[in-house]
Amino acid sequence: MPCEIINVGTELLLGEVVNTNAAYLAQKLAASGIELFYQTSVGDDRARLSRVLRGALKRSDIVIITGGLGPTQDDITKEVVAKILNRRLVPNKKIISHIEGRFRARGIPMPKSNYSQALVPQGATVLKNEEGTAPGLVISHEGKTVVLLPGVPGEMKSIVERQLTPLLERKKEKNYLIISRYLKVFGLSESAVDEKIKDLMENTSNPSIGILPRETEIVIRITARTGSPELAEEMLSEMEEKIRQRLGDFIFAADQIRMEEVVGMLLEVKKRSLAVAESCTGGLISHLLTNVPGISRRFLEGVIAYSNQAKVNILKVPQEIIHRYGAVSSQTAEAMAQGVKKLARSHLGLAITGIAGPGGGSIEKPVGLVYIALADGRGVNSRRERFLGEREEIKARAAQTALDMLRRYLIEN
Amino acid sequence: MPCEIINVGTELLLGEVVNTNAAYLAQKLAASGIELFYQTSVGDDRARLSRVLRGALKRSDIVIITGGLGPTQDDITKEVVAKILNRRLVPNKKIISHIEGRFRARGIPMPKSNYSQALVPQGATVLKNEEGTAPGLVISHEGKTVVLLPGVPGEMKSIVERQLTPLLERKKEKNYLIISRYLKVFGLSESAVDEKIKDLMENTSNPSIGILPRETEIVIRITARTGSPELAEEMLSEMEEKIRQRLGDFIFAADQIRMEEVVGMLLEVKKRSLAVAESCTGGLISHLLTNVPGISRRFLEGVIAYSNQAKVNILKVPQEIIHRYGAVSSQTAEAMAQGVKKLARSHLGLAITGIAGPGGGSIEKPVGLVYIALADGRGVNSRRERFLGEREEIKARAAQTALDMLRRYLIEN
Repeated sequence: MPCEIINVGTELLLGEVVNTNAAYLAQKLAASGIELFYQTSVGDDRARLSRVLRGALKRSDIVIITGGLGPTQDDITKEVVAKILNRRLVPNKKIISHIEGRFRARGIPMPKSNYSQALVPQGATVLKNEEGTAPGLVISHEGKTVVLLPGVPGEMKSIVERQLTPLLERKKEKNYLIISRYLKVFGLSESAVDEKIKDLMENTSNPSIGILPRETEIVIRITARTGSPELAEEMLSEMEEKIRQRLGDFIFAADQIRMEEVVGMLLEVKKRSLAVAESCTGGLISHLLTNVPGISRRFLEGVIAYSNQAKVNILKVPQEIIHRYGAVSSQTAEAMAQGVKKLARSHLGLAITGIAGPGGGSIEKPVGLVYIALADGRGVNSRRERFLGEREEIKARAAQTALDMLRRYLIEN
Repeated sequence: MPCEIINVGTELLLGEVVNTNAAYLAQKLAASGIELFYQTSVGDDRARLSRVLRGALKRSDIVIITGGLGPTQDDITKEVVAKILNRRLVPNKKIISHIEGRFRARGIPMPKSNYSQALVPQGATVLKNEEGTAPGLVISHEGKTVVLLPGVPGEMKSIVERQLTPLLERKKEKNYLIISRYLKVFGLSESAVDEKIKDLMENTSNPSIGILPRETEIVIRITARTGSPELAEEMLSEMEEKIRQRLGDFIFAADQIRMEEVVGMLLEVKKRSLAVAESCTGGLISHLLTNVPGISRRFLEGVIAYSNQAKVNILKVPQEIIHRYGAVSSQTAEAMAQGVKKLARSHLGLAITGIAGPGGGSIEKPVGLVYIALADGRGVNSRRERFLGEREEIKARAAQTALDMLRRYLIEN
């Protein structure tokens, strides 16, 4: 049952956006055991989209189209699909009331053009869009399936996860599965990971192993291809175990779980409360932690002590420490950690101070120098790190390192 | 002179890598005035790559293929291209000595399989690869041009920048430029933007206008196609002026500039200092602001008052306000803004409190309800907003709205 993806949008052909939708859908299809053979990007152009869609319907059983479902002039996908499949566009009452409801909930008037989003090719199944106004649509046509999804990534993903995936699962060939498991590594370089598991990678092709470097982590992918889910799980678990033996605590999570979720879980399990004091990361650590639902039980407060005055006034860092050792020093980091812990009356205080750049560096204290400190009821510990990269990369890597330090502490204490 | 891109690699169809090569090449082509009409990803499969390549040669004058030039079994691009263009693969001495030289320099023996990388379709022009072993190739065939590039992004870019771009510049129609300008809008829905400029979009095809919805903003793209850069600038400026007349202050930036950079610039120009108190956004506003280099002159501190205790203890929000109106209320937001302003001794205090979800909502105060307050030397103002979406989207939209409120204040005061 071959499948292909068509991404519609002139912005893709001008290079204005990177096509993350294609990669996301490709992953989901692989996970559902559906073989993806082609992906095409085409602009908001009736003739060229028609040409691509006609070609796709000849060679693929499932055609997934993203983009061009908005309310504006250049949103042409439904119109083109309706014409090629020889169907009329008809208004759908449920969609109308869903769109009206969204505008009402936000308390703003609904522009007329939004009504065009409620037009659907006759006979289409509607996949409700919980995040926006453009619904997903599924059309069965002469043994083929055409799926239309909005191009805004958040809306597309929400429809795929809640509604399209279960539907595709029912369509796929029985007894063919491509199942992957992911292990996330922090604190080792890509080549260091490679050296540790190279022999495992070379000695097996099923499950296959891939190493994917990401901005602040390395992901190891294990993929099994087999007919039985039980066998696949067994193959994956056996290989996971071998890899875990090599990498130990450098593996911080499996699959899509993020570092901040691991930390949130550990805070919950260990029943510790946390306060965070940030200088160079400017709120990023707190932002990441507060992305975790329910974290408010454990994360009490954060202070972004960007100025020295804030470090002294709010966090009670002694003026003389800043004067003698500088704002970027282990001494200041430790005083910040203790200060924020005391201020919040929390079990733990995490603090970070450093130079994110591009300005502010010197030979002794270069851009990317960062001190991270963690205070608990018994005392305080700190470490020194040096990160390379642009300002935002330094912030991201420093935040991830601080969270990893907290993770390792919570595992052991 | 229409062009298309073919990206070869099964990893693209498994979603293991995001196709950044396509976006990069698309930008380069647009900058060179070459129209890109299609982009296709296909796996390491002879039959399917042949099918895609045959289709591409029918409809496009320039076909750029990336990937599949490595030394392993599944690198099939050259073989398929040679077959379809009916040419023999012949060894190229220059490439052999280049590859041998690279291995010698690294002091490691050269595997035999690398010799396959020195085979080129007869008559091809070689583009030297300074970063790796797979050279780029250009083949002229019956009035069409086929370009082969390695799939590793660093190697591909190096060849494109040093060798392919100058070559394409010579191929393109003289005096044909595609130049775009971007206007970023906040505070209007996509359909509202469409209604305001629909007639402009309908009445002109050059410059063309596109509306691109993003997660927290709407981008309007104006694209001019013409022979002279001066004329292009004139066309763009004239259309920009018309659009600005319609949308006024809803346009917050041009081109790639972000909301937080606009706010940073305005703080600098108006010589105001800022402190931020966040509840539901959990540090995101401060994180965005501190992504701006040099912001430390204006951004003094941030407080993430996640717990009520933090709102009372640090920000001095009167306990009775929280008790009477709740932590999510205009009164609490206003007290937070005034509190953080006083704490930091800044000119301005920005505060936000709300319910990011998924838990914590009620009928009176649903998930997504947010209050934003801004305090200055004269007093404090607040507004109520309701956002829809998942936790992270609500955080992102709330943060962007708070920054926009600050932007509008700074323009007027």
